[in-house]
Amino acid sequence: MHTTKKQFKKILSYYSDISTLNNIQATLEWDLNVNLPRSGGQGRADQTAYITKLSAEKWQDPTFVELVAEASTLKDQTLEEKAIIRNLQHSLKYYTRIPQALIIEFSRETSLAFMAWNSAKQKNDFSEFSPHLKSIIKLCQTMGDHLTYEKDPYDALLDLYEPGLTTADCKQYFSEIKTPLTSLLKKIVNSKKYNALPEFVNGDIVFSQKKQQELSHFVLKKMGYDFDSGRLDISPHPFTIGLGRQDIRITTMYQSTDFRDSLMASIHEGGHALYEQGVNPEYANTPLDGGVSLGIHESQSRFWENQIGRSPEFIQFITPLLHAFYPELETADSERLSLLFNHVSPGFIRIEADEVTYNLHILIRFELEHALINGKLEVDDLPEAWNTKMKKYLGIIPPTNKQGVLQDVHWSYGSFGYFPTYTLGNLYAGQLHAAIEKETHYTQNLTTGELRTPLGWLRSNIHQHGSVYLPDELIKNATGSTLSTSHYLTYITDKYTRLYNLS
Amino acid sequence: MHTTKKQFKKILSYYSDISTLNNIQATLEWDLNVNLPRSGGQGRADQTAYITKLSAEKWQDPTFVELVAEASTLKDQTLEEKAIIRNLQHSLKYYTRIPQALIIEFSRETSLAFMAWNSAKQKNDFSEFSPHLKSIIKLCQTMGDHLTYEKDPYDALLDLYEPGLTTADCKQYFSEIKTPLTSLLKKIVNSKKYNALPEFVNGDIVFSQKKQQELSHFVLKKMGYDFDSGRLDISPHPFTIGLGRQDIRITTMYQSTDFRDSLMASIHEGGHALYEQGVNPEYANTPLDGGVSLGIHESQSRFWENQIGRSPEFIQFITPLLHAFYPELETADSERLSLLFNHVSPGFIRIEADEVTYNLHILIRFELEHALINGKLEVDDLPEAWNTKMKKYLGIIPPTNKQGVLQDVHWSYGSFGYFPTYTLGNLYAGQLHAAIEKETHYTQNLTTGELRTPLGWLRSNIHQHGSVYLPDELIKNATGSTLSTSHYLTYITDKYTRLYNLS
Repeated sequence: MHTTKKQFKKILSYYSDISTLNNIQATLEWDLNVNLPRSGGQGRADQTAYITKLSAEKWQDPTFVELVAEASTLKDQTLEEKAIIRNLQHSLKYYTRIPQALIIEFSRETSLAFMAWNSAKQKNDFSEFSPHLKSIIKLCQTMGDHLTYEKDPYDALLDLYEPGLTTADCKQYFSEIKTPLTSLLKKIVNSKKYNALPEFVNGDIVFSQKKQQELSHFVLKKMGYDFDSGRLDISPHPFTIGLGRQDIRITTMYQSTDFRDSLMASIHEGGHALYEQGVNPEYANTPLDGGVSLGIHESQSRFWENQIGRSPEFIQFITPLLHAFYPELETADSERLSLLFNHVSPGFIRIEADEVTYNLHILIRFELEHALINGKLEVDDLPEAWNTKMKKYLGIIPPTNKQGVLQDVHWSYGSFGYFPTYTLGNLYAGQLHAAIEKETHYTQNLTTGELRTPLGWLRSNIHQHGSVYLPDELIKNATGSTLSTSHYLTYITDKYTRLYNLS
Repeated sequence: MHTTKKQFKKILSYYSDISTLNNIQATLEWDLNVNLPRSGGQGRADQTAYITKLSAEKWQDPTFVELVAEASTLKDQTLEEKAIIRNLQHSLKYYTRIPQALIIEFSRETSLAFMAWNSAKQKNDFSEFSPHLKSIIKLCQTMGDHLTYEKDPYDALLDLYEPGLTTADCKQYFSEIKTPLTSLLKKIVNSKKYNALPEFVNGDIVFSQKKQQELSHFVLKKMGYDFDSGRLDISPHPFTIGLGRQDIRITTMYQSTDFRDSLMASIHEGGHALYEQGVNPEYANTPLDGGVSLGIHESQSRFWENQIGRSPEFIQFITPLLHAFYPELETADSERLSLLFNHVSPGFIRIEADEVTYNLHILIRFELEHALINGKLEVDDLPEAWNTKMKKYLGIIPPTNKQGVLQDVHWSYGSFGYFPTYTLGNLYAGQLHAAIEKETHYTQNLTTGELRTPLGWLRSNIHQHGSVYLPDELIKNATGSTLSTSHYLTYITDKYTRLYNLS
């Protein structure tokens, strides 16, 4: 990146070490999820802890902190220089306001909590996890106090994942979408086309992993994912990770009796990866590299997964491929496959949720974690509160805590404030879709697999900017206005009204 | 590891960081060889350079250097404490005697040389590599001067790979084996059974990679390789690497028209890995962990590959498996398969060489690199000198430099002094075989796949000791005497006399 100011040159040179440490950490983490042999856990934990320590030392180095403070007062800063300062100050808030002892305790407690959660989930025993959850909530509250906030301690945590996002924003977004979504869901469930148990994926047919893999590769290449700067591997939970500017890897998982999951996971992670691969190469190893926030990142994965991958038009394009790869599907025409890929059914598990119920799962988590952080809900009352909200928003009650309050890993990591970014991603994706559609009418051409148009638009309007603009500004520049839930609601209502012949 | 001395406690605590950095470096290196996408090279180079720098800083930290010096003067040191000091002093010699600037220049020059070698080899153009080789030789000479030596600058380099090994030792060993080997080779080539082009592997039959993989897994498990603390992957050049005490990984490569290579590479690397997996767990993350020298390490891989894997008895055991996995081999009985796995034929390429010619390839490299380091051979005269020695020892002259002087990567890495450890490994393996055979008569039971006996012997006599004993001492404790070439010569003469019906 070009800068004429010596302070910024120094900052960039210093930061490149932090960036290298991040890439090393990512390599350790990728390998942990994809390759690590069963007994290698302790060794790997020692290695990641060591890099975490080195990285924290770099961030907390008084010379660096002072350099950033000094640079922040300089006049005539370029747009990029301002963004560098803003991004560094955002990270420094975490590293300098939270005492080192608290960071270490948090890391130790979440390691223990993760193991307890894992075991509690397996045994369906919430009481094994609850004491850990109590400690973690206390630690998160203390962290919030150190980070400071204006109105709500939960604000301080939200800001870690989505700079500037507040509780009030979340409440507003959810209040706007919850009624339309629940009533859309009711209409679907009562429609003639509704089918709680979809055919073809009811366990009778086994879909070859090799074919699933080939299909993922084909679609990812079609999307523009650069395999020379990345790889596709297998892990229990699909993810995207950057091990370096030209090494953005993705993973997927193969279900033998459901051909849909691996493809949608690959497209989803491919969306994340296209964002990272599309950042201005000049920003490599600077604080401007990579996606700007979790919400914007999720908008990219969701856009490719839902607005493109699950569109009837794209499914029409891949129908001949699906027939060729999986002869058992030959009797399913494009319309039937569309319904399969967009099958709606209220279920207990978030990660298996369809597009319509997904945000209701997030809403439940948002309301619960907000209450927990604000001391308005006790951990001991959480399982019951969970079930009550499931009944309220999805009309079903999980028969076990394993299928309920214990299903997600996030709270064991201490990631309070993370869940809302999933919904934010869906909302951003809806707004981006509306803007791209208005400008390019891209959807109709998805039937021929024409993906260069939406990619080109995203490259120019989102990807290349890396972390230069804050989410709000980025979306406004790209779509003409800041986030509104209306685009998402129009998109989802239209799509499912058509798919299920609703009135 | 147990120690009551506070200096040693401090040393072990300090060293655990170095060990963690080594493991992180190994993760980066394993990933580079197994997974790295094509464009990821520069990013990975930055990461490894950063860890190299951190590691050197740790080694050169004056507090640590002083601590080691202080501990070395303590009285009543245990065997293990003495070994810790000896091993640390050996490494510190490299880090403290060689100026930092020279280490950096060496690293920079070898990176360039590696690229030049790669390109020169592809184009069969020695002149592209020769200027780099000249610089590297100069740098190695300077390094030798800094490391200091008694008689021969090459001694200083040998000692980096095999503590205590001297040029005089090498000359002695080679002088003892070269005549018996060349005359054995001559007898084989003139025998009735000699066949320059073996059947079954002449390119007509394609052997399924999946089957090759299954066979490697089966044999590795049989050997006792612990897959819970390791993995088997694919890389262009098979290798073994420790990413942590319980994460010792190996790689192999699959040739579609030769079923032998992947199996022998897997057994070879498995031999290295068994050594690392068998070290006393108390030595984890201390200077006593891991194999003691390259020569001893190579003895483990060679022993499993040759004395076990290529023995007629073991081949008898796997013959039914080979027939079941590769039906095309059904007409080859155990004796024929034995000859296939032990096929002798003088060739141009070291890594494809058989057991009889292998050490002659090493002899050529030893004589040439010794002359280069001592200024008795100019780089410009090297290709001709190579061919002359090939004619002398193997009776053939490579038609191109690509198949001659440019074939090996080692000199581009600056690894002068490394090659002799390959022969040393073969000699140690011969001596270990004689001792194990005398004590346990294990060979006859290889026909039933009984590998626990040799593994148990190696676990007790070699593996568990890690780096406590120097190679000489270790071999003497294990076999009753220091290294003698006689055991190796007896082994190889007996084996090939029988296989080829020589008189």
